[in-house]
Amino acid sequence: MKAKKELEKIVNKVLKGEIKLHELDEILGNSNIAVLVRRLSIEKMLNIQLPNIGFTTIDWNEVVGRNIENPIGAVQIPVGIAGPLKIHGNYAKGEFYIPLATSEGALVASVNRGCKAITLSGGAKVKILSDTMSRAPIFKTPSIDEALKLVKWVREHFNEVKVEAESTTRYGKLLRIDSFIIGNNVWLRFIYSTGDAMGMNMVTIATDKACKYIEEKLGFKCVSLSGNLCVDKKPSLMNMLFGRGKTVVAEAVIKENVVKEVLKTSPEDLVDVNLRKNLLGSARAGSLSFNAHYANIVAAIFVATGQDVAQVVESSMGYTWAEIVNNNDLYISVTLPSLEVGTVGGGTRLPTQRETLQILGVYGPGNPPGANAKKFAEIVAAVILAGELSLLAALSAGHLAEAHRRLGRGLSKKSKKQ
Amino acid sequence: MKAKKELEKIVNKVLKGEIKLHELDEILGNSNIAVLVRRLSIEKMLNIQLPNIGFTTIDWNEVVGRNIENPIGAVQIPVGIAGPLKIHGNYAKGEFYIPLATSEGALVASVNRGCKAITLSGGAKVKILSDTMSRAPIFKTPSIDEALKLVKWVREHFNEVKVEAESTTRYGKLLRIDSFIIGNNVWLRFIYSTGDAMGMNMVTIATDKACKYIEEKLGFKCVSLSGNLCVDKKPSLMNMLFGRGKTVVAEAVIKENVVKEVLKTSPEDLVDVNLRKNLLGSARAGSLSFNAHYANIVAAIFVATGQDVAQVVESSMGYTWAEIVNNNDLYISVTLPSLEVGTVGGGTRLPTQRETLQILGVYGPGNPPGANAKKFAEIVAAVILAGELSLLAALSAGHLAEAHRRLGRGLSKKSKKQ
Amino acid sequence: MKAKKELEKIVNKVLKGEIKLHELDEILGNSNIAVLVRRLSIEKMLNIQLPNIGFTTIDWNEVVGRNIENPIGAVQIPVGIAGPLKIHGNYAKGEFYIPLATSEGALVASVNRGCKAITLSGGAKVKILSDTMSRAPIFKTPSIDEALKLVKWVREHFNEVKVEAESTTRYGKLLRIDSFIIGNNVWLRFIYSTGDAMGMNMVTIATDKACKYIEEKLGFKCVSLSGNLCVDKKPSLMNMLFGRGKTVVAEAVIKENVVKEVLKTSPEDLVDVNLRKNLLGSARAGSLSFNAHYANIVAAIFVATGQDVAQVVESSMGYTWAEIVNNNDLYISVTLPSLEVGTVGGGTRLPTQRETLQILGVYGPGNPPGANAKKFAEIVAAVILAGELSLLAALSAGHLAEAHRRLGRGLSKKSKKQ
Amino acid sequence: MKAKKELEKIVNKVLKGEIKLHELDEILGNSNIAVLVRRLSIEKMLNIQLPNIGFTTIDWNEVVGRNIENPIGAVQIPVGIAGPLKIHGNYAKGEFYIPLATSEGALVASVNRGCKAITLSGGAKVKILSDTMSRAPIFKTPSIDEALKLVKWVREHFNEVKVEAESTTRYGKLLRIDSFIIGNNVWLRFIYSTGDAMGMNMVTIATDKACKYIEEKLGFKCVSLSGNLCVDKKPSLMNMLFGRGKTVVAEAVIKENVVKEVLKTSPEDLVDVNLRKNLLGSARAGSLSFNAHYANIVAAIFVATGQDVAQVVESSMGYTWAEIVNNNDLYISVTLPSLEVGTVGGGTRLPTQRETLQILGVYGPGNPPGANAKKFAEIVAAVILAGELSLLAALSAGHLAEAHRRLGRGLSKKSKKQ
Repeated sequence: MKAKKELEKIVNKVLKGEIKLHELDEILGNSNIAVLVRRLSIEKMLNIQLPNIGFTTIDWNEVVGRNIENPIGAVQIPVGIAGPLKIHGNYAKGEFYIPLATSEGALVASVNRGCKAITLSGGAKVKILSDTMSRAPIFKTPSIDEALKLVKWVREHFNEVKVEAESTTRYGKLLRIDSFIIGNNVWLRFIYSTGDAMGMNMVTIATDKACKYIEEKLGFKCVSLSGNLCVDKKPSLMNMLFGRGKTVVAEAVIKENVVKEVLKTSPEDLVDVNLRKNLLGSARAGSLSFNAHYANIVAAIFVATGQDVAQVVESSMGYTWAEIVNNNDLYISVTLPSLEVGTVGGGTRLPTQRETLQILGVYGPGNPPGANAKKFAEIVAAVILAGELSLLAALSAGHLAEAHRRLGRGLSKKSKKQ
Repeated sequence: MKAKKELEKIVNKVLKGEIKLHELDEILGNSNIAVLVRRLSIEKMLNIQLPNIGFTTIDWNEVVGRNIENPIGAVQIPVGIAGPLKIHGNYAKGEFYIPLATSEGALVASVNRGCKAITLSGGAKVKILSDTMSRAPIFKTPSIDEALKLVKWVREHFNEVKVEAESTTRYGKLLRIDSFIIGNNVWLRFIYSTGDAMGMNMVTIATDKACKYIEEKLGFKCVSLSGNLCVDKKPSLMNMLFGRGKTVVAEAVIKENVVKEVLKTSPEDLVDVNLRKNLLGSARAGSLSFNAHYANIVAAIFVATGQDVAQVVESSMGYTWAEIVNNNDLYISVTLPSLEVGTVGGGTRLPTQRETLQILGVYGPGNPPGANAKKFAEIVAAVILAGELSLLAALSAGHLAEAHRRLGRGLSKKSKKQ
Repeated sequence: MKAKKELEKIVNKVLKGEIKLHELDEILGNSNIAVLVRRLSIEKMLNIQLPNIGFTTIDWNEVVGRNIENPIGAVQIPVGIAGPLKIHGNYAKGEFYIPLATSEGALVASVNRGCKAITLSGGAKVKILSDTMSRAPIFKTPSIDEALKLVKWVREHFNEVKVEAESTTRYGKLLRIDSFIIGNNVWLRFIYSTGDAMGMNMVTIATDKACKYIEEKLGFKCVSLSGNLCVDKKPSLMNMLFGRGKTVVAEAVIKENVVKEVLKTSPEDLVDVNLRKNLLGSARAGSLSFNAHYANIVAAIFVATGQDVAQVVESSMGYTWAEIVNNNDLYISVTLPSLEVGTVGGGTRLPTQRETLQILGVYGPGNPPGANAKKFAEIVAAVILAGELSLLAALSAGHLAEAHRRLGRGLSKKSKKQ
Repeated sequence: MKAKKELEKIVNKVLKGEIKLHELDEILGNSNIAVLVRRLSIEKMLNIQLPNIGFTTIDWNEVVGRNIENPIGAVQIPVGIAGPLKIHGNYAKGEFYIPLATSEGALVASVNRGCKAITLSGGAKVKILSDTMSRAPIFKTPSIDEALKLVKWVREHFNEVKVEAESTTRYGKLLRIDSFIIGNNVWLRFIYSTGDAMGMNMVTIATDKACKYIEEKLGFKCVSLSGNLCVDKKPSLMNMLFGRGKTVVAEAVIKENVVKEVLKTSPEDLVDVNLRKNLLGSARAGSLSFNAHYANIVAAIFVATGQDVAQVVESSMGYTWAEIVNNNDLYISVTLPSLEVGTVGGGTRLPTQRETLQILGVYGPGNPPGANAKKFAEIVAAVILAGELSLLAALSAGHLAEAHRRLGRGLSKKSKKQ
């Protein structure tokens, strides 16, 4: 390690603008030192102290140029444990403890209550209905004739295009290409399977190769490698209807006495809240998403496990359906058309994220490939079910505000105003 | 601190089910020890090692019962720095360095490039158009007559209701109540100003008080304190049209030579990508959101600064508009109807999050109240502008896949397949 | 009247292209003759016979240049009568017979059954929640600063703008102007009351005048007098949330025995169809409209009564809500945010349309102005309720296909395949 | 014919309630007399005169029990002629005159101008991308396992189901069945080709048969023959993405001088209006439909030609795209995902409607079957293109209000206020 004085010299050069922040890794030849110098430089520049953000177990030489550029340290987000949650999936089988990263009081406690109610009732059943990742470039052509020519060519030369796309990846498989047209514009929606990776990067690179091949063969211009029909990180009916990532359903039948004793409400009241809030309310609000708070659970698991947090947007979309069954038990289900998760790549290899994935038993590649990501998706769906069940119960019992008063403002400070 | 042996005893009791995970804080009387015991218990139960997740500067006695329940440690997410970014807001004035927490390679570098282009062109102009937080309970009534009676009563007794709601909060002010009806169902959308807090908890507690008052006075049942017209953590036209959090516009005029030299494309090509991808593409996909990747930037800032990450859903919605001006310069703007941020409360007081807020100069309460949150919102909007500009440029230049190949798979491993 | 030979001469000139079809009214000085010549010309040109389309009671001198250009005759659409339907509105009170113009077998019979069920149960209650007409021009400005300047100016000079707008109309009153922004684009949504007219033309002309005034005063360009936020003849959340035309709720409580005897189903089954089809189904389909077939009834009344048929699009949007009340009766309601009707102007003055309006007791201007259009809106909403009730019943009883087999393919030809 | 006195007797019985209106056809044994008696009864009941509505060439014995129940006569709607319009379709080839039924002044004139601009520029190119009709029943099952069992069974027994469905129809062919799931609910979207018929009735009856077969084989309950995923007469992304009826694109390149001389604007200005109004405006309004006024044209043709007018809702949805090409010509296209038309069945056989279809050369069954309906769809799309072109031009030239002042309020009454 360079001596303190050496570092100060470099910090001074940064302050004078002689060295740019992003050049430090290369100049210093060691990203761990670069992180330190960069943080010191920011402290000096802004005249602030940053004693905590550098406190991390990350080896920056492992992550710079892969997961991050220009790092100064790491942010720490509390991880709480909910569970056990009993799950009957095709991949996830048994009882699971769930790591949730959040700073919103009451969330872990609420999910935990949902886990208890489900587990006491025999567990959650989970099914994956589809499993794909998509990238949809847009091409411009001179006319509808040419647009149709492009679509036809791609259909007839699918195998060639597939070879091109798959030449860039070990795990990605091109399954099909859907086309959509407006006038002389054509979107080709490339649909892949991506094994245990969420796969966004993989399909971006593969589709780029395929597009260049198409451009070369046909002479049409690919205006943009993403034409917003992918649909990545935006809410859309495209994903609701065609799926992206995993399409998953989780359901449970909660015994009437469990609803009453654990959830402090009745099946009828909970069903009524689901109908008026999640169905009628979302309809009235012009929302595409008919649930109470999938996003809270998705966000907490995504942050905890190194997923692409921006994909909370579409991964949290879905429909909650509840009804009375077997005399007076509660059937409840969550349907997630576009849950995008992976157990390899992205942030999954960071030190703490690896551990949260290990808690779930899904770290790294599965056997066969894809099995770990599917197991993970099943768990996530079951936890969303737990979270949804618990919040709907709290709302129907009139307990939501009380929980937030207690767990959001501090246990022993009930009367504190904010 | 209790001795190692003592702890092992307690761990054993947890393993035997004699102590529940969530009882540890109370039994041990010290959350820092409870976190340790809980982690050790999980390690034993699952037969795994968790050496990193406990490595944190968080004082758990400060956060349990406020930000988290059942914690076992913290997850660490890399924070990179983009900037400087020159901003001309009403609150944010000058050049800013932007902390972005992400594990997706290329994001910080891309935003950084956008910051450079904007700053070289004179900076981003930002305006806040509105600033509110809402909670929308649903009431059931016997008939449309009664529904209208409820609406009328609330309009005529607004001041009483306001006194009730505001009795629970020091900073929250009830501004108005909008009503929406389906048959005999009434949603009352309570709209508040919440100072420097994002305010979700604040308005939940205040609206609960107000609803109980209305129930008592009129005898109608509040079916659910949230009737999904709030709209929290779901994409909706309600928020697009009425706003929630801050409604913000950021814009810049990028000189033609900066577009060419820094962004490696032309104004015409970038405008064309925006039209065909962000407008036509989102229309074709049935998306409510007409942009390229606001969510990436919103997520990275929200994770870094202790915001409610699930609110990335609606905070990332918005419209990008670009056109050619002044002969051949590029006008580009981002419009964010529902950006929900705060500088007090929630995760903002965690050790590392406090530091990222300090880097932006927005930690804690503003003077006057609300000024810090507004400054923060202006900065976020400007950074989104930078991110959007850079990605649209990369797409129009055909560089997206290359950037991800380089910065997502590791600098020196270009040929590596995934 | 000119002699037959004269007419043939003119027809020949039309066929040779010496006279254009649209010049005939002026050349002949009589639109009734122009219609004849035009029809004869088309017959000759295309070598077809048009014996029926000229068979009409319309005096073309009254309608050319007002309701139509280049007419060749009129199309005849069957009008059936449903009812009586008992209505308790603020304007429509008593029992009504409903003229429905349609060529779809089973529709009148189905609505008629709904009317019977409602009337037997005591009638439909109807309330109008708002009554406006809007036009939303879009302005472009150089920047967000200027955009806000425009919005502020309009707010501060509302009275001046109102004077300009209202100078073009006797009945139109400008109520307020809402503004919406994307970057440097501003939509001003002008909102009027329009008396008994549907008012689209009225507000177009008034808003044009106002826009020219704004352009002159501020120098910003009005890019388009309609910026698609009106929203006319397109489905939109804008209208669902802000209303356009009349926002109306109609409801009824149908006695259990009436549901069973008249509608051949049970309250529970009908509620279940409404939930799974109208709420869950429309959600799953990505529809903005949560009902079974409002459009059928709206179209049939609009065609019958000379309304703007293209406005079926938004006038038919809305939400059906049903639930069990009073032990086992059926509560059902329809909520129509954007029902656009008028009793003066447009096609209401055509001979047959006038008669259908007279059947409803709403022809011409009301006293006070607006009262007839409101009465009409209340009736339309009640008929939609009847139609919705009857179709939901048919679906829940499994009778839909049978009704169409019988009434769509001819009574005595049950086995006929199509 | 029965004598006048006989009729009066029967009218009196109707007035006393001894005969119901809907019983007249059977009692009198002649629907032409029944129509008369019914009209006289209404006149007496309401004390009004209805001299015009009975003036019709319809033979009621031909239409009662097929197209209408309880008729009292027919409504007459003016039909104007636009064109000629040159079309290059796969089915529609040559120049066409277009019958438009409307009571909104300026519409025919505006479409006519669009036809002129297109024809002068060489005509409109039209392509049909798909041609189907769908009906989507909803089934309830006990659990996601059973839901998947249903989906699997239908996939594996498709041929059996097809035989059942097609046993009810000569022309309908079942092409495939798509499935959609929420929890334990399954929608099966039956997709057919229907020849020259629009086909709604045909597929309703066929799907009913198929559903009964599925219910019988599997024991799951079909809750509703339509589960709102069809999607009939409601706006939806389902139809935008999967198509229903014909998916059609029409386009034209309008020469710069034609834009200037015929349309009184410039290609740049028209493109700008399309971008800011149709794309940005519809996005801001939360509309699913990105055009100016397809509904006006669709409604006018549907009313004129005996189509199902309620289907204006989804048939008018679509996307207008315009751009500058070839130096400074205007490319403009309309894309219609869900245009539902037929040339046999429904109202197409009524006397005047038959004639308007003959004007277009598309009356009755095509050869091969389906060819006439496809030709008709191509024409409709081309006319929509003409209408859209003309309105965008009027808006960009600032002429819209003037046209409505002139043609909506009467030619020589320019100063008249309404």
